[in-house]
Amino acid sequence: MAKRVINFYAGPAGLPLPALERAQAELLDFSGTGMSVMEISHRSKEYEAVHNEAIALIKELLSLPPNYHVILIQGGGHLQFGMVPMNLLYKGRGADFICTGTWADKAYKEGKIVAGELARCAASTKDDKFARLPYPGEIKIDPSSVYVHFTSNNTVEGTQFHTWPETGGIPLVCDMSSDFMWKPFDVSPFGIIYAGAQKNLGPSGVTVVIIRDDILQQCLDKELPSYLRYRIHVEKNSLYNTPPTFGIYILRNVLAHNKEIGGLEAIHRRNLRKAELLYACIDRHADFYRPFVKVKEHRSAMNVDFFLPTPEQDDAFVKAAKAAGMVGLKGYRDVGGIRVSMYNAVSVENVETLVAFMEEFVSKQG
Amino acid sequence: MAKRVINFYAGPAGLPLPALERAQAELLDFSGTGMSVMEISHRSKEYEAVHNEAIALIKELLSLPPNYHVILIQGGGHLQFGMVPMNLLYKGRGADFICTGTWADKAYKEGKIVAGELARCAASTKDDKFARLPYPGEIKIDPSSVYVHFTSNNTVEGTQFHTWPETGGIPLVCDMSSDFMWKPFDVSPFGIIYAGAQKNLGPSGVTVVIIRDDILQQCLDKELPSYLRYRIHVEKNSLYNTPPTFGIYILRNVLAHNKEIGGLEAIHRRNLRKAELLYACIDRHADFYRPFVKVKEHRSAMNVDFFLPTPEQDDAFVKAAKAAGMVGLKGYRDVGGIRVSMYNAVSVENVETLVAFMEEFVSKQG
Repeated sequence: MAKRVINFYAGPAGLPLPALERAQAELLDFSGTGMSVMEISHRSKEYEAVHNEAIALIKELLSLPPNYHVILIQGGGHLQFGMVPMNLLYKGRGADFICTGTWADKAYKEGKIVAGELARCAASTKDDKFARLPYPGEIKIDPSSVYVHFTSNNTVEGTQFHTWPETGGIPLVCDMSSDFMWKPFDVSPFGIIYAGAQKNLGPSGVTVVIIRDDILQQCLDKELPSYLRYRIHVEKNSLYNTPPTFGIYILRNVLAHNKEIGGLEAIHRRNLRKAELLYACIDRHADFYRPFVKVKEHRSAMNVDFFLPTPEQDDAFVKAAKAAGMVGLKGYRDVGGIRVSMYNAVSVENVETLVAFMEEFVSKQG
Repeated sequence: MAKRVINFYAGPAGLPLPALERAQAELLDFSGTGMSVMEISHRSKEYEAVHNEAIALIKELLSLPPNYHVILIQGGGHLQFGMVPMNLLYKGRGADFICTGTWADKAYKEGKIVAGELARCAASTKDDKFARLPYPGEIKIDPSSVYVHFTSNNTVEGTQFHTWPETGGIPLVCDMSSDFMWKPFDVSPFGIIYAGAQKNLGPSGVTVVIIRDDILQQCLDKELPSYLRYRIHVEKNSLYNTPPTFGIYILRNVLAHNKEIGGLEAIHRRNLRKAELLYACIDRHADFYRPFVKVKEHRSAMNVDFFLPTPEQDDAFVKAAKAAGMVGLKGYRDVGGIRVSMYNAVSVENVETLVAFMEEFVSKQG
């Protein structure tokens, strides 16, 4: 049996073991075909069943209303940073961007490449090192904007929107890469949601895009290269060109597992318990585990950044954790310190193990 | 042991068994990390070793000169249809397109979306149903073109360029998706080569782009969304954003296997032998196995299209082949009939088995 570590990577990140074991068992002979799922035509009925099941599971787990479409596409969040404004910002149409972290800021900059001054910054917490979210009164939205872009969870800085920004009815466009499906939520304020799979959903190389029909109808069509048009991917059920079949297969395995363990309600309860355990430990030892995010209601349940008193202690912590079978704890290069990422595949027991380690680590320093 | 079929799919297609077995063995514990290669950060030293090995193997197997860069990107040939003109056709710069099949024609149409009339058709064999390539005198290249685009192997129609189009020194840009690395070749006439991995190289979701440095220097930069700029992917060693790590890992496994079995010279000898065997059978029974491509010097060694006397016989052939353990033989929807795709992972023995089946099938009809 393979020796497995506890995986706190920020992404690509850990996947549910049953989803991987299923892939391993049928890697040379998928669904009785005598082929790997990697080796079979994307037009075959065996692959199409997997493809359609993945899309159906996203719709089911999120209880998506019928006016929402699901696209599976390549290129990650980065390609979406370009595609959203390319599809929606034309002929003087503008949008607002809420800049709350490294990736949110990047989405805004890409918007400016496409739309120039029509991509507007509605709020930025950069002057506070993105260590908090903007307060409602700080967000200035242009009423002519066709969408408001934000990042629901800031992977680098460890902040998370627990209530959606108020836009006065303007559709939200959201990069949910690092907290997609961490809980059930009502999609109706959203025009577009996109998420790279490699955090909560599957391997890198697959991006989920959810688009509301009225927004889809506003997208540019013939003027854009085909791959960059949302309309084509919707019309062709994400089979316009060869999709990343193996990645979608793993996504299907993860989603099927998520359904089996009780869906997003059960996952949400687990995620809340994990966050509670870890933040309680940090709060107990706030002089030693110094949180990057000071505003408690802006704390992320997915990514938790903190600093030990010295960078040498940070390094010693990462090293000792690795020796204890826990990996991926080194902070992002721009922030430093420690980052704990606890996506859906991280169990409550994994976090209990980490917290026990943290208690022991702090007691040894005292 | 998994029961494996003989795989003649046009793509995604069969992969070398040792490359898959290696993946299966370490799917839950890659390189002693206690994680799947899907679960580990793309910034980890363990993943970076795989990434760099894949790129180094492409350079080594093709003997790439130092003025060529290798990019691993998402989005398939379709995204390249858009990216090439977006990067190179600006400020009045035009290009020529040689239209020899379904995909070549698509590349031309996407060029027109980006560049309008500056994307020019240098030759088309559409009036002959793309059943042949243009003869040298039929290709009219505008001397001001900054590149000439062509498709080295036409997957749908079964034609293949065995000598490169003459351009008077204008760089070639080539979609090699369906015959990349089927033989060694001199890259010096090429400005850009791109190839979706899912035929000769690995799973879908990874695209190899090879770009000559002088062409890279002409690419647009700040005006394009970042993901669409070749320069960024070169500068960041294809780690600008999260790459499709598992796909690149399988690509590495396939390339390492290709090196082990003797590199592209050995693969070429095998591919020539396979083509010789299959075409000899077709030529022996030209009244029964009626080739789509009539011009022998334009025949593809990768994809071979033929028709039996009636569509009912085509169907019976596909069905009987499947019963005999051979899959993927149904022709492309626009052409019909039978298509045999015999990429690198198809062995000489596989083609011998097919030919024996074809001999038996024709004898039963007689």
